[in-house]
Amino acid sequence: MAEFWTTSGLDLLVATQRSRRRASLEDGLRQAIESGRLAYGTRLPSSRSLADDLGWSRGTVTAAYDQLISDGYLHARQGSATVVGFRPDRSNTVAEATPSGTPWRYDLRPGTTPIGSFPVEEWLRHQGSALRDAPPTAFGYGDPAGTIELRTALAAYLGRVRGIRASPETIVITAGITQALSLLAAVLRQTHPGRTIATEDPGFWFHRDALARSGLPIVPLPVDQEGADPQGLDVAAVLVTPAHQYPTGVTMSPARRRSLVAWARGNDALIIEDDYDGELRHDRRPVPALQADAPDRVIFAGTASKALSPAVRVGWLVVPEALVDTVGQTQRHLLHNVDITTQLGLAHVISHHAYDQRVRAIRVAYRRRYQQLSALVSTLTESFPGMRLVGVRAGGQAPLLLPPAGPSEQDIVASAASEGLALEELAASSHTPGSHPPGLLLGYAHPADHRYHATLQALGRVLRREFA
Amino acid sequence: MAEFWTTSGLDLLVATQRSRRRASLEDGLRQAIESGRLAYGTRLPSSRSLADDLGWSRGTVTAAYDQLISDGYLHARQGSATVVGFRPDRSNTVAEATPSGTPWRYDLRPGTTPIGSFPVEEWLRHQGSALRDAPPTAFGYGDPAGTIELRTALAAYLGRVRGIRASPETIVITAGITQALSLLAAVLRQTHPGRTIATEDPGFWFHRDALARSGLPIVPLPVDQEGADPQGLDVAAVLVTPAHQYPTGVTMSPARRRSLVAWARGNDALIIEDDYDGELRHDRRPVPALQADAPDRVIFAGTASKALSPAVRVGWLVVPEALVDTVGQTQRHLLHNVDITTQLGLAHVISHHAYDQRVRAIRVAYRRRYQQLSALVSTLTESFPGMRLVGVRAGGQAPLLLPPAGPSEQDIVASAASEGLALEELAASSHTPGSHPPGLLLGYAHPADHRYHATLQALGRVLRREFA
Repeated sequence: MAEFWTTSGLDLLVATQRSRRRASLEDGLRQAIESGRLAYGTRLPSSRSLADDLGWSRGTVTAAYDQLISDGYLHARQGSATVVGFRPDRSNTVAEATPSGTPWRYDLRPGTTPIGSFPVEEWLRHQGSALRDAPPTAFGYGDPAGTIELRTALAAYLGRVRGIRASPETIVITAGITQALSLLAAVLRQTHPGRTIATEDPGFWFHRDALARSGLPIVPLPVDQEGADPQGLDVAAVLVTPAHQYPTGVTMSPARRRSLVAWARGNDALIIEDDYDGELRHDRRPVPALQADAPDRVIFAGTASKALSPAVRVGWLVVPEALVDTVGQTQRHLLHNVDITTQLGLAHVISHHAYDQRVRAIRVAYRRRYQQLSALVSTLTESFPGMRLVGVRAGGQAPLLLPPAGPSEQDIVASAASEGLALEELAASSHTPGSHPPGLLLGYAHPADHRYHATLQALGRVLRREFA
Repeated sequence: MAEFWTTSGLDLLVATQRSRRRASLEDGLRQAIESGRLAYGTRLPSSRSLADDLGWSRGTVTAAYDQLISDGYLHARQGSATVVGFRPDRSNTVAEATPSGTPWRYDLRPGTTPIGSFPVEEWLRHQGSALRDAPPTAFGYGDPAGTIELRTALAAYLGRVRGIRASPETIVITAGITQALSLLAAVLRQTHPGRTIATEDPGFWFHRDALARSGLPIVPLPVDQEGADPQGLDVAAVLVTPAHQYPTGVTMSPARRRSLVAWARGNDALIIEDDYDGELRHDRRPVPALQADAPDRVIFAGTASKALSPAVRVGWLVVPEALVDTVGQTQRHLLHNVDITTQLGLAHVISHHAYDQRVRAIRVAYRRRYQQLSALVSTLTESFPGMRLVGVRAGGQAPLLLPPAGPSEQDIVASAASEGLALEELAASSHTPGSHPPGLLLGYAHPADHRYHATLQALGRVLRREFA
């Protein structure tokens, strides 16, 4: 039944079936993209040339492409080739290797977490106290919104550290920010059927994918030196990173904060504030959360992944009062209950200020790592003007802009891979690859302490070689 | 803008808006049903009489009813009244009270878990060893399919205890069975677009709701004395409880197991085996899982909720090899990663045979509780012939059939509530309330040990009073 084809423009075998041409082409491409065989950014043959190769009508191929475009697998631009617009969820996998199959020796990709930093003994001590103190009735299915212990601890912590206005009743515990976004997508599909959401361009591709897969149409939200700018957009919601824009590293200006809130009020829109590393500003005090400016308009999303560990799979939403019931009911129906033993442990960590101590320790460690990275870049800038770190000093990643006349981001990433160094190009964060200045998004959190110096040396070698 | 109305047949205020009549009626009814103000089984006024009361066209009311019927909130039967067909997720909430607002004194509802049974010290000991032994790289985002430690421990355990044929590669860790079902619903929507799934009638309403909310059309799968019977159904999948049918308590006969697998092969359908309490047979050895008969057709779903605790929010799927990639990718995209610290702890519990010991201890405890319940029912049967426990002795619940000529299930539940005893009627498990013999589904797992005797006495009082 199945026939296999390969085209010159696309060196790939896809099984197609005569009886279900369109569906089999669509399935084959989807699987190839999901498995990574068809990499992000790969140009597909035009529908005309593929139809010729297959001996099919062009309409059949176009229909399959259109479906994959609307599902977010492909990306089409007026007047240029259709390209693969989806990448398999790398940040969410364990086994990783260079294209040649050997393990990475060095890793400077963002979103990964510090190796060796999980405080096992401290966690066990807090969780032990929490579980021993809990009443026997605590160990049931629990409230889908989260345990009262954790919501109470968070309301106090977020008020103190991020200026958030929250009560335990307006907090919903999630399995991290990305799960929170799929929850909010389900809420928006109910409250704003058929409407779209704007996500930052450039912005975190993994969250954009998560929203798209949850069935929300997405449009780009432009980002400039003051942060995200929603003017002129007609959308139900925007997803923003005001404290530390991902990936540009800018902090939203006070004027932009005001105009964003005014835009949301004028358009009856919601603002989803992704505060993924809000506490981790390491050059000065963090700015308060945007939620503090408009608790009735802003849904605040936070996570324990950055300050504690992604192994503790807990995040939280602070929800405007008018939305509490809808969000709570939706979480209940999505059945994303979060482990109770972990919630009780985390509540103990936070309410005993061990979380604060950890945030402070991480800030000190990241500040030191940033300084070492910055020192390396300074020496490179002397030889290669235009190479510079931008953005505020916060969290675990920083964008490195590259001289526009140099090699492409892809070439640099490939060159780094050849010596076992994993890098991520800035283009990965763009809605439209190629529309932003060339650069790398350097994640300096991940390497183990004793490997950090050698990792930076590898980065220096690669950049010198490529730009020489 | 809003006007409020109340009708004789439905003592309820719903805010309706002139500008969006249908939508506001729909929203009002949905909220009333979700909040529990409109209870499961409540008769709604006919669309004609409600339209008359509101001074609206009948079509507007009918359109709102139709939408709620297709969403599963209402249930319509040919020639009789439309009734509320949805119940708020009681098994998934914490704060619970009698209709008059006082807390329950006694609780014999199924699905709740034994109070005071979470082995805090033992859990901490195992989790402590597991976390101290784990490599520093273990504390990252982890594999969306679950940690290799837990999947390896489960492959061995399930093979030994349930006869399952599994390798770590065919296991996917979930946040319990219900989350696993929403995962499988997403898979079926991809692999069998537009097709339906059949769930047991009677069957567990919470799982039926979860599948319906995940967008799968549902049809009833009849259950008789041999278990679920799919003959004549044209569906993509069936959800069954072969080891201990919920709620009837029958174990699927060997002949029915064979005909179910033959039906699945003949119809290219999948069998989802919900093995919620498969290990907990307490009169004799449990039957092996159906998965052992057809590993290529059966998706096996298990949970730590019953044998350990629902506070440890972990379940698992064993997936046919041909589906492993699709299920894994979908779990990755649903972002239901499960807490790593908990997975490592549970892997240690299982691989050190502490899970087996716990299963044995629970079996002994449940056997004793069942015997006490059975003794009470024997004395009642002498006075009220037709009152009897049915089904095999397994897990934590048993159906009590009631003499058909007696008071209604609803009356008994209400009478019990008046003295603080929480009961669940068998009708709650029916796709079509009223189509099955009257009875109660008695959950004997929940009460604390020292409260069990008094709880049974309360049950005896209520039944004697109602049937006298």
